[in-house]
Amino acid sequence: MVDRITSENDFLVLVDRCFDLTTPHQLSLRGDDCAELAMPEAICLSSDLFLEDVHFRTAYFSFYEIGHKALAVNLSDLAAAGAVPLGFNMNLILPAPTPRSAVEQLLRGMSELAAAHNLPLTGGDLSQGQKLGLCISIWGKQAGRKFLRRGGCRPGDTLFIAADSRPLPLGLARAGLYSLESLGRGNALSLAPDACKRHLLPNPLIRAGIAIAKLAPETALMDLSDGLARDLPRLLGYNHAGLSLNKRTHSPEHAPAVSLGAEIALTDCALHPELLAWCRRSGLNPVEQAVLGGEDYLLLGSTDKPELLKTIEAEADGFYCLVIGKVNDSGMIMVNGNEFSQTGFDHFSG
Amino acid sequence: MVDRITSENDFLVLVDRCFDLTTPHQLSLRGDDCAELAMPEAICLSSDLFLEDVHFRTAYFSFYEIGHKALAVNLSDLAAAGAVPLGFNMNLILPAPTPRSAVEQLLRGMSELAAAHNLPLTGGDLSQGQKLGLCISIWGKQAGRKFLRRGGCRPGDTLFIAADSRPLPLGLARAGLYSLESLGRGNALSLAPDACKRHLLPNPLIRAGIAIAKLAPETALMDLSDGLARDLPRLLGYNHAGLSLNKRTHSPEHAPAVSLGAEIALTDCALHPELLAWCRRSGLNPVEQAVLGGEDYLLLGSTDKPELLKTIEAEADGFYCLVIGKVNDSGMIMVNGNEFSQTGFDHFSG
Repeated sequence: MVDRITSENDFLVLVDRCFDLTTPHQLSLRGDDCAELAMPEAICLSSDLFLEDVHFRTAYFSFYEIGHKALAVNLSDLAAAGAVPLGFNMNLILPAPTPRSAVEQLLRGMSELAAAHNLPLTGGDLSQGQKLGLCISIWGKQAGRKFLRRGGCRPGDTLFIAADSRPLPLGLARAGLYSLESLGRGNALSLAPDACKRHLLPNPLIRAGIAIAKLAPETALMDLSDGLARDLPRLLGYNHAGLSLNKRTHSPEHAPAVSLGAEIALTDCALHPELLAWCRRSGLNPVEQAVLGGEDYLLLGSTDKPELLKTIEAEADGFYCLVIGKVNDSGMIMVNGNEFSQTGFDHFSG
Repeated sequence: MVDRITSENDFLVLVDRCFDLTTPHQLSLRGDDCAELAMPEAICLSSDLFLEDVHFRTAYFSFYEIGHKALAVNLSDLAAAGAVPLGFNMNLILPAPTPRSAVEQLLRGMSELAAAHNLPLTGGDLSQGQKLGLCISIWGKQAGRKFLRRGGCRPGDTLFIAADSRPLPLGLARAGLYSLESLGRGNALSLAPDACKRHLLPNPLIRAGIAIAKLAPETALMDLSDGLARDLPRLLGYNHAGLSLNKRTHSPEHAPAVSLGAEIALTDCALHPELLAWCRRSGLNPVEQAVLGGEDYLLLGSTDKPELLKTIEAEADGFYCLVIGKVNDSGMIMVNGNEFSQTGFDHFSG
């Protein structure tokens, strides 16, 4: 048998093999113009593109990992909202020479992650294209009495990161990416297996988001997709062009009364050994690389009730809330006493 | 000023200029990880890819038309479900050299169609890529007491097409596509303006779908995206590989009790003059080309209450329900007494 997709129907056979056809959320079966879905009063919804040579490379990603990560980065957006995932649509752009077995591996990587979250595939689209690409839309319901959002931080609030392992894996996916790019999959996996896994198979922190939404619904929360240095200003209510988000959204209740800043404290020994080893080999500063980060898919929160963090940790096994600093009114991000911008320490003193 | 997108924020400025920030459907403003949306008890949801050199060519599409059509083909899926559109997410893949003014035209084409349907843009994603591409997810609520679907047809049912103009524009978008491909935009638009407009700026039949859902909720309905020859077997409950849809979906209530077929009657004089002229120039049979069609974005329905079609037409100005034939138990599609397959007349007798 030739290892290729012979028709759209052939593709649908693979989809049906990997994803259940019926779930309580779906009022109809896949295969019509639209999916019919039962809905709660309010949902949160997110869409993300995951494209070859922009977000991943087939040189060091397996197809299983591509399928997993495409869904994982979308689930991470729901985790940031403190939401319980309800369903997703998958749109797949497939180059003509893609082997059928590779497509099956991609669907397998996606369906195993979906099954771990009881998440039905409700529909989507398939098209040929020059490069592999995925576009996923995902939605969920409130775990607590509201969805969590960015903004609303005040001076004195405690900044924390929810993570699924210790030591703090901040910057670890960055170390994985650079190792994979420079060394190739085999060598990078031997030298830095945890770092590579962070980049290839991120673990969306759904349970952490749900616990925070239930126990501390006033927390400002977002997921770290672009690195702490770029995402922290967004949590504080500033977008990456330096404009106040409230100017963009006309939302006076979220307008910071003062020019917010933050003081972050991080030591090398709080960071993952593989990040430290990569920085040693490359002549880089570990704290700077951890703060620059990128694709961490940890949760970054701000709360005025830091005493709740222990309760939140106890709610769900397997994740940790690590305090990294405090919000202040300085209008600057300081890391270990030095000013930090989106490109690193501005006055870097070693 | 250089005519290019300088940052993600620059793109968001264009988006905000074209699409309203606040609508009743949205519980939060754009700009967070997820959109928060108010929802009815049931929605229908659809996603479609719209990709350069697969679904459109920049050689003869303006950017305004690309933005319009990307949304229109998704709206057509909601029309087929008899749904009232509620909102959509847009994911855009943008080649680096795309001029800023072109992006603005694309957004303008999309936002004008969205505004015509009171449809808010709730979120999405932006990424670089080699070729221009869009992925839209769209959802809507019931206009009547249920959503319309394919299947459930019985011998004796009347087959009709809901269209927005007379004569029946079936196959007209096909004539437009082939004219644009062979003659280029300027010549094709001079020679066959209606046909080109059908391909470049399709009009989704939302009001027709809503009227059918309200007045004839037992109608089987779908939109004609792949042409009558490929879509009619799907309406009857057979997918394009010839497998019974109910085998795929395990839905016994929709299983045809007999092997359904259809008898279609179409004459040249029922078809658009530009289709007739194109067929004359190209030595093609107009009825065959109309049935092969493709990207018609008309609605194909089957009902056992054909007397309702006049009432439906009266409900909303500007569209027509044209009877094209009857469902039977022959297991074959016959057009004017000749067997018709997905490639045209099997025994074509001129």
